[in-house]
Amino acid sequence: MLLVTATLLRHRHRHRLRHLRHHIRLKSTSPSTPQHYHLPLNHPTYLIWSANTSLGKTLVSTGISASFLLQPPSPASHSTKLLYLKPLQTGFPSDSDSRFVFSKLDSLSLRLRVPLSVSNSVLRSSLPRSGIRENGMRDLNFLEEKVVTGAAAELSCKTLYAWEAAISPHLAAERENAPVEDSDVLKMVEQCLREEMECGNKTNLLCLVETAGGVASPGPSGSLQCDLYRPLRLPGVLVGDGRLGGISGTIAAYESLKLRGYDVAAVVFEDHGLVNEVPLTSYLRNKVPVLVLPPVPKDPSDDLIEWFVESDGVFKALKEVMVSAYLERVKRLNGMAKQAGEVFWWPFTQHKLVPEETVTVIDSRCGENFSVYKASGNNSITQQFDACASWWTQGPDPAFQAELAREMGYTAARFGHVMFPENVYEPALKCAEILLDGVGKGWASRVYFSDNGSTAIEIALKMAFRKFCVDHEAILNFSEGSEEKKHIVVKVLALRGSYHGDTLGAMEAQAPSPYTGFLQQPWYTGRGLFLDPPTVFLSNGAWNLSLPESFSEIAPEEYGTFSTRDEIFDKSRDTSILATIYSAYVSKQLQEYSGVAQSAHVGALIIEPVIHGAGGMHMVDPLFQRVLVNECRNRKIPVIFDEVFTGFWRLGVETTAELLGCKPDIACFAKLMTGGMIPLAVTLATDAVFDSFSGDSKLKALLHGHSYSAHAMGCATAAKAIEWFKDIETNHNIIPQGGILRELWDEELVQKISCHSVVQRVVVLGTLFALELKVDASNSGYASLYAKSLLEMLREDGIFMRPLGNVVYLMCGPCTSPEICRELLSKLYKRLGEFNRA
Amino acid sequence: MLLVTATLLRHRHRHRLRHLRHHIRLKSTSPSTPQHYHLPLNHPTYLIWSANTSLGKTLVSTGISASFLLQPPSPASHSTKLLYLKPLQTGFPSDSDSRFVFSKLDSLSLRLRVPLSVSNSVLRSSLPRSGIRENGMRDLNFLEEKVVTGAAAELSCKTLYAWEAAISPHLAAERENAPVEDSDVLKMVEQCLREEMECGNKTNLLCLVETAGGVASPGPSGSLQCDLYRPLRLPGVLVGDGRLGGISGTIAAYESLKLRGYDVAAVVFEDHGLVNEVPLTSYLRNKVPVLVLPPVPKDPSDDLIEWFVESDGVFKALKEVMVSAYLERVKRLNGMAKQAGEVFWWPFTQHKLVPEETVTVIDSRCGENFSVYKASGNNSITQQFDACASWWTQGPDPAFQAELAREMGYTAARFGHVMFPENVYEPALKCAEILLDGVGKGWASRVYFSDNGSTAIEIALKMAFRKFCVDHEAILNFSEGSEEKKHIVVKVLALRGSYHGDTLGAMEAQAPSPYTGFLQQPWYTGRGLFLDPPTVFLSNGAWNLSLPESFSEIAPEEYGTFSTRDEIFDKSRDTSILATIYSAYVSKQLQEYSGVAQSAHVGALIIEPVIHGAGGMHMVDPLFQRVLVNECRNRKIPVIFDEVFTGFWRLGVETTAELLGCKPDIACFAKLMTGGMIPLAVTLATDAVFDSFSGDSKLKALLHGHSYSAHAMGCATAAKAIEWFKDIETNHNIIPQGGILRELWDEELVQKISCHSVVQRVVVLGTLFALELKVDASNSGYASLYAKSLLEMLREDGIFMRPLGNVVYLMCGPCTSPEICRELLSKLYKRLGEFNRA
Repeated sequence: MLLVTATLLRHRHRHRLRHLRHHIRLKSTSPSTPQHYHLPLNHPTYLIWSANTSLGKTLVSTGISASFLLQPPSPASHSTKLLYLKPLQTGFPSDSDSRFVFSKLDSLSLRLRVPLSVSNSVLRSSLPRSGIRENGMRDLNFLEEKVVTGAAAELSCKTLYAWEAAISPHLAAERENAPVEDSDVLKMVEQCLREEMECGNKTNLLCLVETAGGVASPGPSGSLQCDLYRPLRLPGVLVGDGRLGGISGTIAAYESLKLRGYDVAAVVFEDHGLVNEVPLTSYLRNKVPVLVLPPVPKDPSDDLIEWFVESDGVFKALKEVMVSAYLERVKRLNGMAKQAGEVFWWPFTQHKLVPEETVTVIDSRCGENFSVYKASGNNSITQQFDACASWWTQGPDPAFQAELAREMGYTAARFGHVMFPENVYEPALKCAEILLDGVGKGWASRVYFSDNGSTAIEIALKMAFRKFCVDHEAILNFSEGSEEKKHIVVKVLALRGSYHGDTLGAMEAQAPSPYTGFLQQPWYTGRGLFLDPPTVFLSNGAWNLSLPESFSEIAPEEYGTFSTRDEIFDKSRDTSILATIYSAYVSKQLQEYSGVAQSAHVGALIIEPVIHGAGGMHMVDPLFQRVLVNECRNRKIPVIFDEVFTGFWRLGVETTAELLGCKPDIACFAKLMTGGMIPLAVTLATDAVFDSFSGDSKLKALLHGHSYSAHAMGCATAAKAIEWFKDIETNHNIIPQGGILRELWDEELVQKISCHSVVQRVVVLGTLFALELKVDASNSGYASLYAKSLLEMLREDGIFMRPLGNVVYLMCGPCTSPEICRELLSKLYKRLGEFNRA
Repeated sequence: MLLVTATLLRHRHRHRLRHLRHHIRLKSTSPSTPQHYHLPLNHPTYLIWSANTSLGKTLVSTGISASFLLQPPSPASHSTKLLYLKPLQTGFPSDSDSRFVFSKLDSLSLRLRVPLSVSNSVLRSSLPRSGIRENGMRDLNFLEEKVVTGAAAELSCKTLYAWEAAISPHLAAERENAPVEDSDVLKMVEQCLREEMECGNKTNLLCLVETAGGVASPGPSGSLQCDLYRPLRLPGVLVGDGRLGGISGTIAAYESLKLRGYDVAAVVFEDHGLVNEVPLTSYLRNKVPVLVLPPVPKDPSDDLIEWFVESDGVFKALKEVMVSAYLERVKRLNGMAKQAGEVFWWPFTQHKLVPEETVTVIDSRCGENFSVYKASGNNSITQQFDACASWWTQGPDPAFQAELAREMGYTAARFGHVMFPENVYEPALKCAEILLDGVGKGWASRVYFSDNGSTAIEIALKMAFRKFCVDHEAILNFSEGSEEKKHIVVKVLALRGSYHGDTLGAMEAQAPSPYTGFLQQPWYTGRGLFLDPPTVFLSNGAWNLSLPESFSEIAPEEYGTFSTRDEIFDKSRDTSILATIYSAYVSKQLQEYSGVAQSAHVGALIIEPVIHGAGGMHMVDPLFQRVLVNECRNRKIPVIFDEVFTGFWRLGVETTAELLGCKPDIACFAKLMTGGMIPLAVTLATDAVFDSFSGDSKLKALLHGHSYSAHAMGCATAAKAIEWFKDIETNHNIIPQGGILRELWDEELVQKISCHSVVQRVVVLGTLFALELKVDASNSGYASLYAKSLLEMLREDGIFMRPLGNVVYLMCGPCTSPEICRELLSKLYKRLGEFNRA
């Protein structure tokens, strides 16, 4: 259908579109250079939005300015200042909103006899210099001002970018060959606000940033303005529409702002006698106040001064709403760290070790960045790269986050939640189809949904054990209804250091660890044969193999190093002597185990392919895991891949089965599957596994489910995310030929870090960069606080990290640009030096 | 802040608002009478939406009609028909869009020499009869038609409701005293579509339903039209805005439609020379085609006939998009049941017992109703009440579903997901505050977030056991680091028939059941002292007590019946002899147990308060549970309430602690907490429990977490839902004084059902009505298929149910009106009679 119409459209507008497509650049989905905005929050700042053009944004800005500035001097003798910014102005110089505000305020100050200093400046413009048009924007350095001695109030108006044509900025920028990047607009806004705010708290300051056109009108790059300004997430005032049809336009504009995470403090519009405020107030009840301005005189010769005087009451009310919303926001932000410490019970956190000042107050996130509130010194909102990938789940860049928000709103409205058993609905079916055509391709044929990695693992274990029991019925002497089964014990084969989740069943599949002690989990027994795995790591610029004690007879120099990381994954290693040694070792272990405990059977192999995440970011020798898989397959022991952490591009490939070069019978996915948005997990299985649950009774079915199994929101989000990550149009990191991610971490920097004196080892693969700090025994392990000072320094650099004891890591999303990763690495490298000296 | 401005607004518009508030009724948040729409889907039907008024919706309808009807007769000699509906027309009769379409098509058929029969009718209107205005709408019975003999094509235009004033329908309805309910509009639309469609498949039919004004313009009741039409969820065509500012208005309108779960097949707008299609196409890329119409002549004397001829190519393309989107949708719907059976692995489902034709294809949900696709006979979309409350989670009515969709869109855009430990962000903090001020009030002081009931229970058990170990350190001879602890065994005290979730740790806390066999869960051992509970139930019109065998010495007639349900919960029973008997029994059991297994300790009491859900909807005698709590408290055994099923109004109270009259140390909530939208669970705990994890090492902290712990989406949704359910303004079922739900199930019908010959017992409380069918032993239990034929009949009645073996239940949301519940019960009662005869 889409194909058909795309053609039709081109047919209709062939000439025009060809022309335009050539000139108007497609908006890049992810910024190629890292941006960290830092906005002071010690004075109120608002975006002035509008539901459409020509609804009087500038009248509203002027009215707010007047009500703020033109008051009798306060007894506290504070000076008062209003900064008015017009970032994007077209139709310049005949149209200039900043000049309008400037001149009206000047007139009003005379009319009301309140002394006021006013200025208006235009910073950059595409205007022809000496009558000759040149490409690009240039400094205009235009300034007009009127300084009134003794005035306690001051208005500063600034136009940041001005184009000549009276059309949308994206068209003007194209026509005048004067493009401006989104990031430049934001940097300029940030700079103007900071200059003004850093003057301190003595001035009573209010800042207005007036947008151009409607909320979703394009900016100069073609980005919609509501998307363009999103990284700053300034609160807004929405100028609504009082005309016929204006209720709809106002509500739709309001919803578009909310759907991008903005807060709106008030809706204000001009009265056209249609009492639009009644349905608007009803819709916005308990959310946002609605204010109505008197009708604006239509006579073009009217200078509107009387209208402003008449409207003063409404503007005063509006200004009060804005100031009080600001004060409330700051008050709330200031109290949050303390309140959090009083009511939350954070997981994996010793509350005694978390003083109030170390709690991070997160005001919002935009793509990979947190916007963090800092109360120390001047209040401010500053950006930090979320290098925990919010605990290993995050994928979206800003464009994708916005897309997911729309998808989730749609899905919630269309489906809410629908119970799954014996039902089908589009998001669940689509998600299942995409999974089987992607990570399950070539082996899986069934999708079992659950809520998180841990539940997916428990389901996988139930599947594997059933399959094992069916396959080994004769040996197990197992028959339905028989009580004999009670003495049968099935266990897993697993690797020491792997981690499969926090519910009891998942924990039983891991070797004893700090997580499994009696105090933590009194019911843990450890139901497995746990083997020490050989690991690989980068150190002093080279990839090394580390063999556990059980292989002590092997001389390390024989197999010790690899010339490249690729060599580690090379399938030709299958015929090496090491492969034979691995194989013999695994055989022996399995044999010894069944000899020791005759009624205990290894009923499943479970591995985290390639990387042990929670266990400390260890890279397991993939050859060893491949040997394990083969040995188990030879014995009809079902193979489970726990891809909860490793799946969906975390390691540079959609599924780590591609890295290992072998397929499982069962695999679990979660985390990144929904793009890091909401919980959803799946357990994929082969037909053979599925068939082992087939029978005439419901009691033979797999009786494990959660209320939100295959919930529509999760499935829709997952379907979107899986497609987004692997589409070369939306994810610029995908190498089209290989279906893998390009190298994200700068190889030279990685080498340098691996040679650093404080670094024990480095692991780098896909979106993961991890290093272990050299420590003595007392400082190693999960409870170590050794890395604390390093991470504190990196927070100052705008990088949010959390350690695994003395292991620290940087984790980005599948769409994060290598430029951003390079910046992260170079900051880390720099701080390692300081950490060394400390 | 809101208070301040509400006052300001009233001050400004006092007189006007008072007047209007009196006349314009607030939209009711939930329909008081059940509505089940049934829409045939054997021909394409579209809503024609618009981004604003006056953008040419009617021109588009006319153009589509012309391109559909005015073609050379097809060789297949199918007749062709277009039904054009204008549900809401104001400014009538001088404005009549249906008349416009009618007359233009007549002219175009002459111009293009394609014979066409045309008619235009107006069904109901507020027009004065014989010049005198009366209240209300009346039948107008206006019809004009032109029948062309031999014409293979026919146009039928209908205006459903017409008002005289040329203003918004909500104002016209008020001014002319001619209100129309939303449900009446929908019923009329449904009826017109059905009349036309049920003529069969021989005619080539297309139906258009043209809205009034913009997408969010109010209908006659004041409901926004995008909300009004939502139950039908017809796909739409959006007429966009090609003027300056029109990009923004078009995108915003599109987003408002999506945010209500609508599908949009195409965006079409009039060219104003601003190439608005470029940014629109970029925004809608891979989603919706954008089509551009030539400029409409501005000369009022132009009859537009030439414009329609010129635009034919675009309209033809649009029509093709609409038809192909329809065909694709039907094709997908037809294939879904089969595909589901091939790729899904449904939980709790024996796939062998689910033939394709019994799979329910759910196209959407609106409030409590599924919209179900039926392929049998004529394709259709029909509504079924979701009496499983989508597996016990659902709460929203249509208004709340829309509100939650907005909240989720906003939260996804503002926060995406943010990792929780040592961080704070608004949704998590607000959710925690609301929980501690609500279900945790008076006892809990900490909130531990997780993903589902099962994980919340595992966390609760870890908390309880730690607390127990700390409190009983001396007896346990337990010290940190000691290896002695290895032989200590802690177990739960629990009731037989209770169910706490599907992960291993939660399963270990339940007594052996069909879910725990070796085939299901080889690792299950049952780590508890499990007691048989006394239960209560309604039978033959009376509430009875049923004591388990262990109480065989008690004469049942002594304690056997209760005169009312309230009596069961009466706290005066605490001083009864039965209380003493219960108490002695529990004491004895605990004593005997510690005698048998000296190293085994009961470290926690865990109960589902009042109702055992998955265990078969049994009501446990609350006196017995209260005694259990007291006995455990006396022994310093921590008490866990599993309120995953019972919490948040499921049983008519926010927390069942209110019903039991005692508080826990730890409580788990999930399901309804997020309004039945997405997974989130919490474990609440007292300060004393929290303190038992305090120490100097991280290893003493509670090391249990999931990636999406306290995810922003879940927390925001929960905060909204918890507030919505208990607010008397949004939930009309709340009795303000008691903070409890009014009785939802008609008492007379409940009595009658409890006396029915096929009914063993009834349990009714809050949103739950359950009954157990009388069966012989072979048909009882979880795997029983006995209820199947009863439930199939009820599906025909528009009620979607799922049994627990021979127990069937109806479950509504906390906001569902008693009228809807009465209808459900009376249908059930009627079908019980037929079931009996079968």
